Amino acid sequence: MALRARALYDFNSENPGEVSVKENEILTLYSEQDIEGWFEGTNSKGERGLFPASYVEILRNDTYPDSRYANVPSGGFDGSYNPQSKQSHAYQQPSQGSDDDWDDEWDDSSTVADEPGTAGGRYHDFEGNGPSTYRVSTASMSRGNAQQAKSSATVSRNLNRFSTFVKSGGEAFVLGEASGFVKDGDKICVVMGQYGPEWQENPYPFTCTIDDPTKQTKFKGMKSYISYKLTPTHTQTQVNRRYKHFDWLYARLVEKFPVISVPHIPEKQATGRFEEDFISKRRKGLIWWMNHMTSHPVLARCDVFQHFLTCSSTDEKAWKQGKRKAEKDDMVGANFFLTISTPAAPLDFQEVESKIDGFKTFTKRMDDSTLQVNTTVNEFARKQISGFKKEYQKVGMSFKILSQAFEMDQQAYSAGLNQAISFTGDVYEAIGEYFAEQPNKDLDPIMDLLAVYQGHLTNYPDIIHVQKGALTKVKESQKHVEEGKMDRAQAEGIKERCNIISCATLAEIQHFHHIRVRDFKAQMQHYLQQQIAFFQKITGKLEEALQKYDNA
Amino acid sequence: MALRARALYDFNSENPGEVSVKENEILTLYSEQDIEGWFEGTNSKGERGLFPASYVEILRNDTYPDSRYANVPSGGFDGSYNPQSKQSHAYQQPSQGSDDDWDDEWDDSSTVADEPGTAGGRYHDFEGNGPSTYRVSTASMSRGNAQQAKSSATVSRNLNRFSTFVKSGGEAFVLGEASGFVKDGDKICVVMGQYGPEWQENPYPFTCTIDDPTKQTKFKGMKSYISYKLTPTHTQTQVNRRYKHFDWLYARLVEKFPVISVPHIPEKQATGRFEEDFISKRRKGLIWWMNHMTSHPVLARCDVFQHFLTCSSTDEKAWKQGKRKAEKDDMVGANFFLTISTPAAPLDFQEVESKIDGFKTFTKRMDDSTLQVNTTVNEFARKQISGFKKEYQKVGMSFKILSQAFEMDQQAYSAGLNQAISFTGDVYEAIGEYFAEQPNKDLDPIMDLLAVYQGHLTNYPDIIHVQKGALTKVKESQKHVEEGKMDRAQAEGIKERCNIISCATLAEIQHFHHIRVRDFKAQMQHYLQQQIAFFQKITGKLEEALQKYDNA
Repeated sequence: MALRARALYDFNSENPGEVSVKENEILTLYSEQDIEGWFEGTNSKGERGLFPASYVEILRNDTYPDSRYANVPSGGFDGSYNPQSKQSHAYQQPSQGSDDDWDDEWDDSSTVADEPGTAGGRYHDFEGNGPSTYRVSTASMSRGNAQQAKSSATVSRNLNRFSTFVKSGGEAFVLGEASGFVKDGDKICVVMGQYGPEWQENPYPFTCTIDDPTKQTKFKGMKSYISYKLTPTHTQTQVNRRYKHFDWLYARLVEKFPVISVPHIPEKQATGRFEEDFISKRRKGLIWWMNHMTSHPVLARCDVFQHFLTCSSTDEKAWKQGKRKAEKDDMVGANFFLTISTPAAPLDFQEVESKIDGFKTFTKRMDDSTLQVNTTVNEFARKQISGFKKEYQKVGMSFKILSQAFEMDQQAYSAGLNQAISFTGDVYEAIGEYFAEQPNKDLDPIMDLLAVYQGHLTNYPDIIHVQKGALTKVKESQKHVEEGKMDRAQAEGIKERCNIISCATLAEIQHFHHIRVRDFKAQMQHYLQQQIAFFQKITGKLEEALQKYDNA
Repeated sequence: MALRARALYDFNSENPGEVSVKENEILTLYSEQDIEGWFEGTNSKGERGLFPASYVEILRNDTYPDSRYANVPSGGFDGSYNPQSKQSHAYQQPSQGSDDDWDDEWDDSSTVADEPGTAGGRYHDFEGNGPSTYRVSTASMSRGNAQQAKSSATVSRNLNRFSTFVKSGGEAFVLGEASGFVKDGDKICVVMGQYGPEWQENPYPFTCTIDDPTKQTKFKGMKSYISYKLTPTHTQTQVNRRYKHFDWLYARLVEKFPVISVPHIPEKQATGRFEEDFISKRRKGLIWWMNHMTSHPVLARCDVFQHFLTCSSTDEKAWKQGKRKAEKDDMVGANFFLTISTPAAPLDFQEVESKIDGFKTFTKRMDDSTLQVNTTVNEFARKQISGFKKEYQKVGMSFKILSQAFEMDQQAYSAGLNQAISFTGDVYEAIGEYFAEQPNKDLDPIMDLLAVYQGHLTNYPDIIHVQKGALTKVKESQKHVEEGKMDRAQAEGIKERCNIISCATLAEIQHFHHIRVRDFKAQMQHYLQQQIAFFQKITGKLEEALQKYDNA
């Protein structure tokens, strides 16, 4: 019997080799094994091609053909279910292949067309609504889909929202199905702080610089890549890392930490990778990423990140060892929750629910407003670069034309004025340039900041979902107890584990607020300082021009 | 035999009651007497209506039907020709009526549609090419036609250029036909200065302030008018003058001084006359006008201007006496030149011609460039008021929206930042306002300056024409002498009188350059000072915002 699958969502083919499928359409698969997240098969029209593996469920003996839970693991909730195998599958290809696969330069190969922003104009057209360099949250991919998406535009976030609770391991943990041996070094503490649960501070805080990247070659110059020099303050030893290493690390972290908002790494870009603009932009993105990594009490200390930061770039063997260890880490997903120790007093779930709901509303508002700020400053930057510059330069030009007309008068007493007006013209042309250069100094960093936070904001629906899933389980179990379907001890265990998830979630939210206040404060200060310097520079230029008239 | 006339130029009727005429067309007149500068008659197509008197020559016994000098006075060069009657006719109606006519409030009556600039928007539309508040020179009327033009748009400057030489009295003077008794007080000296001929400086220089005008009423409130309070520094006595008094004075000055560039008074405006914007704008225009009047060595000292400045506003009798005296002044037009005394050494006419040609080129270039500056600063002002303001306010608004979103987080440590961001939003909204308010402080004065000079630039073609006409007469007379048609003494007289006109013209040009350098220097300094203050104000606001983050 042919292997069959049912489409869970509509998928519209966008590239050669893909086929479109409709929700509920029955498909024939050639293999149960996906190819980098894609299945090959035939749709009901008989068209043959690729479709995203995550868009379909494989039908085994036609189990659950009409189930609402169509995307639960094919094995159902039986004991053989292993959350880890489900969780990791999306990242299998890029991150768990042999080390030889790392030479497959998917990061470096050119298939994607030029993105806006690399060749000159970075901002929206003055009037139009062209594409933004920073993809905003509505178009962003779910963190869970970040690696699998070949045609990422069709994979929008939260399509699989329900399954997040399952996939993250949250459900398995709440139901008491997670088990593992927690070493002392893996212990993660949530403590009760002034404002509620918070992650225990990192006793050995550090930061890490990312120096200007250099272009490296291998295979006698056949292959080129960009190498970033990282220097963590706690080792003071420089290591070289490539984008694909960041990418691999990111995948490990997402897999390991279900309720931690792992900062997004800057987007991939296929063409123009060696252009200065792009390299500088990616570096800025990586600096932000690194800053959020080292600021996070849990992420900063985790083994895989430390391996990434400290393993010598030249010790191939040590690198592979650490890499394998990370990929075989047991304490991921459901088991991550096993490592968390909470404050003695359990939380009031009603209060937790209210806090989580408040935060949900907050993230929605913050998402909307950062989107608005992003659009506004993007336009503002664009106008400074085009319109403002043009206006000041037109004024400068007209002063120069006036001075040229005045030079027709050869009177000696006219010469000083003519020179002064001509200089004023130069000054206004320079001011035009200042306006055009300024966004790079003040608005771009704001957009970089917003991009980082827009990344976090796309993480939170999933995080909130995990906590809400746990709380639902608590309510269900209470009902089951009342109905006599569950014994009280089992329900109590669910409650305790929900408390762990809630503590972790609230600690993460608290951390988010802390870094948000820190980052936005710093960035607004930076912005205003730059603006002040900008207007002072203009004033200085104008004062220079004014002086020219003293002897005119 | 019907009274006939020949059209000197094309005239296209624009209003009911007018008829079009073609150059050289023979017309039938109903009366030799023009009606406010218009003849009534029939064209060759039999169409009946009005056409400008200055566009035709009356044919007496068909004298000169084909003459190149078709517009010389109808009496030819016989002794009966009185240049004054020709000169004065254009101003007869508005300015030489009885004193009772002054109550005919043509200045105050509403027939003209709203001009742009009174009701809100003063500047060009952001994108469009709407009308400018300042009419620029190409659309300006010739000073000689300022009063006669009923449909002024069709009477463009220099249509009658050839006749300017005649009408101004220049020709009559050069030909030795002017005569009059020059009193000592009427003497006007051209002296040889460092840069060539110049007007002898006013030994008693003064200035005159124009205070905020007040609205006055008469006839028990039936009539309202705006009264300007003038206080000359040499009398320190305030007099009240209305716009029509300025207008009357202007007509006297234009009539009297053929080669002096009388500054234009601000344009008339029928509606919105009592609106603050208009009153303030007219006052600024009158201040400029007054400044140019008191700066001019000849204009500042002339009797009619002194009468205007010093005659008590309450002494009706004295006013009328001075008014009649001015209107009966013999020393106008051709006779004005009689009052001029020149340096002992006559000018080299070749050098004069080259200087005049150079100045002609200069005025053309200056006209073009001031037009360009005017267009540019008008657009710049427009954009600051609309686009720039909008951009800064949008940024301000987006910061405020962000702070409102952040206020959803009730954490204590967030409050300071929220307030600071909200304040920053306010600051950017204020900066938007600053941009909108600024043109009034720095660009408007530049436009006012340009308007004054554009007025002067429309005067110069006529002034140059008079000098060139005189020079042509010299060349003709030399030819006549060579051909034995004129005796040497007569030619010598023409040469001497041409020297007087040339001295006066060059003195006027020199004066123009002096005030130009003075005014443009002062105005550019003022502009830059205002711009510096503007950017400092913005910087101050931003610093205020930055401080809010100190304790955030």
